Amino acid sequence: MPLSANNPDRTSWLHVDKNSDFPIQNIPFGVFLTRDDIITIGTRIGDTAIDLGALHQLGYFEGIALTDDIFLQDSLNDFIADGRKTWRAVRNRIADIFDSNNDTLKNNKSHKEIVLFRLDEIEMQLPVQIGDYTDFYSSMEHAKNVGTMFRDPDNALLPNWLHIPVGYHGRSSSIIPSGIPIHRPQGQTLPNGATESVFGPSKLVDFELEMAFITTDANDLGEPIPIAEAEEYIFGLVLMNDWSARDIQKWEYVPLGPFLAKSFATSISPWIVTLDALEPYRVAGPKPVKPQLDYLKYKGKKSYDINLEVAIQPNGAKETVVSKSNFKYMYWTMVQQLAHHTVNGCPVNSGDMMGSGTISGPTEDSYGSMLELTWKGEKPIKLKDGSERKFINDNDTVIMRGYCEKDGTRIGFGEVSTKLLPVFNKK
Amino acid sequence: MPLSANNPDRTSWLHVDKNSDFPIQNIPFGVFLTRDDIITIGTRIGDTAIDLGALHQLGYFEGIALTDDIFLQDSLNDFIADGRKTWRAVRNRIADIFDSNNDTLKNNKSHKEIVLFRLDEIEMQLPVQIGDYTDFYSSMEHAKNVGTMFRDPDNALLPNWLHIPVGYHGRSSSIIPSGIPIHRPQGQTLPNGATESVFGPSKLVDFELEMAFITTDANDLGEPIPIAEAEEYIFGLVLMNDWSARDIQKWEYVPLGPFLAKSFATSISPWIVTLDALEPYRVAGPKPVKPQLDYLKYKGKKSYDINLEVAIQPNGAKETVVSKSNFKYMYWTMVQQLAHHTVNGCPVNSGDMMGSGTISGPTEDSYGSMLELTWKGEKPIKLKDGSERKFINDNDTVIMRGYCEKDGTRIGFGEVSTKLLPVFNKK
Repeated sequence: MPLSANNPDRTSWLHVDKNSDFPIQNIPFGVFLTRDDIITIGTRIGDTAIDLGALHQLGYFEGIALTDDIFLQDSLNDFIADGRKTWRAVRNRIADIFDSNNDTLKNNKSHKEIVLFRLDEIEMQLPVQIGDYTDFYSSMEHAKNVGTMFRDPDNALLPNWLHIPVGYHGRSSSIIPSGIPIHRPQGQTLPNGATESVFGPSKLVDFELEMAFITTDANDLGEPIPIAEAEEYIFGLVLMNDWSARDIQKWEYVPLGPFLAKSFATSISPWIVTLDALEPYRVAGPKPVKPQLDYLKYKGKKSYDINLEVAIQPNGAKETVVSKSNFKYMYWTMVQQLAHHTVNGCPVNSGDMMGSGTISGPTEDSYGSMLELTWKGEKPIKLKDGSERKFINDNDTVIMRGYCEKDGTRIGFGEVSTKLLPVFNKK
Repeated sequence: MPLSANNPDRTSWLHVDKNSDFPIQNIPFGVFLTRDDIITIGTRIGDTAIDLGALHQLGYFEGIALTDDIFLQDSLNDFIADGRKTWRAVRNRIADIFDSNNDTLKNNKSHKEIVLFRLDEIEMQLPVQIGDYTDFYSSMEHAKNVGTMFRDPDNALLPNWLHIPVGYHGRSSSIIPSGIPIHRPQGQTLPNGATESVFGPSKLVDFELEMAFITTDANDLGEPIPIAEAEEYIFGLVLMNDWSARDIQKWEYVPLGPFLAKSFATSISPWIVTLDALEPYRVAGPKPVKPQLDYLKYKGKKSYDINLEVAIQPNGAKETVVSKSNFKYMYWTMVQQLAHHTVNGCPVNSGDMMGSGTISGPTEDSYGSMLELTWKGEKPIKLKDGSERKFINDNDTVIMRGYCEKDGTRIGFGEVSTKLLPVFNKK
């Protein structure tokens, strides 16, 4: 099926600002609560949210094989399980319905009243019910920075790093959509020079700039996914802030990896941008520094040129952009991550989420965490309001944004924005 | 509500063998497919499976606040979410219905035909849809054995081990019930002395003898569970075999912990034995070797005296018991694990599963893995058929069993039995 929705010449009868992340070429998928407290699957063009459940009931998806309630759900899991052919047919149809040359819905006032919402009339939810969440560690600059800081600058990468897309299982229950505030976590840490650990609020709360992909049902227990097929099972991408408590992490992570240092919150942007929408922004992944085993070898362009930035907004003040990075800096690509994840027969299901790991670029202003940007806090960052940050303060909001741009078309992710509240106190 | 179901003098009108794990004092919960291909929640007395969905439809739970379809589900999640008061009321009622002194169902032939099944008429399923699965590392003997083998015998425990119930996030999608065969996983390993990794079948597939507890909805994002309340959120326990590929694990696990070495399969026994049923078998947990922080301090007996054993059955041969251990050997108790897991505000939901970690006892025949039993393969184990094992061979079946016994009453878990098939080959 051709990706007619990607036609760069197409315009919509819905208003789209010049710098919008959501032109008619995007058509992301999300879940929202409407003004009538109904939960539905939707998309977005410009600043208009579109209720796909209502569109479907009104017959606008006629001819596409969809169950009646496929969009009247509180998650995209079932729709994603329908597979790529269905995603494409629906996305192409949405492009047609909202095309400037199509008057059918445009001229139907009563239908428009049911289907269209202003953004302030809806409340975005988590787009998928995440069964399993995996986080990789696939940016070489990030791995080198961490290795240089905490181990050996001359051997910054661990021996396995260039051979394996290193990853670990994360906690699904604490994944939240943009806009939900979190509390500074408490936990155990070992103060510098101490031999006994102490309990208290984390003093080193950090963000990690990541992106994550959402999968469809891919394989049964025991059956690996060949790398040449892996892309078929990726629905789309979101921005992700992998909140991290560095002091808790340092004390707990040997030998089984990060646990409570990460599981207090992971924030994602609410609109899943499909791989199809990102098609024009494909770029080659980085050349391997070392030979890779056959099951990790792939052909073609499997990375994407996605501009990323992180801003910190102190309470009541203006935001300051503290990092500008790009998804294309990832050393290991998504198809390699997915092939590796399943090579042992581990099943991947619709709604699973896989994070990239912190995406750090080659320059100091492109690092994806405060740990790296301030080099363990040794070089604090100055914000526009005159204050300084080594890590994230109470009542700071961390905002991440991402977009692709080429030949005058911009496809974006919107943002993931999360406020860090002080430690939770039971009333 | 009193635990009348625990009355040791009670007998059932259903036949129960003297050594059965499932006397009327047990009343575990599980999910099964019936001869009519209907999926339902059930319990078991002796060798009779009982369809709770049918019992409920026939009115036997009158007076207990239950939704009509609470047992007509493919998982126990909703029932578990109803909370401890409901679990107790239902368990007590089941004890009454099947009590030798109660003729109501006993004398109703048509009801019995609908409600009762022989074990060979049903197929046990996973009892819960597991949202998040966490695995701890809470047996001191196991941690010491691993530290002695791979690090330093004089400092076998890592610095954090006596301070933190160390744990990590596991993979939910590859958790399977007893009886489902698995394939030997393939993956990357670094052969001894090599500098480049290779791909192929794991040569060191191992079991880990564990138990796991299933939780109910416990807390919202940001809100820790105080240790004094933790027990309220534990529904019950199962046996768990945390399948492990030691060679894959060794190469991949630094710095983010075990990943593909574990995610190819985790097997559990299908009947969840409630904490209520285990009440008579409470014992004190071990005395702390070092002081523990306040949020990990508890009062009362929080461990359980559960006898455990592991057997290996080569294809077509008799089984050999290779380990006898006990749940009471755990250094960190379940309430400590749950309090620690949530101290950072991580939400715990109905159907989450938390594994104990390998349960090794103090003697060489009580170790909970082949790694320890054969000391890295240096001391192979002799099986009854004359063959030897360093690790698990293709077509071996690994069987774990567990039971409590006191004053003539035995409460057991049945078994978790899993056959290891050769590497998966796509036809």
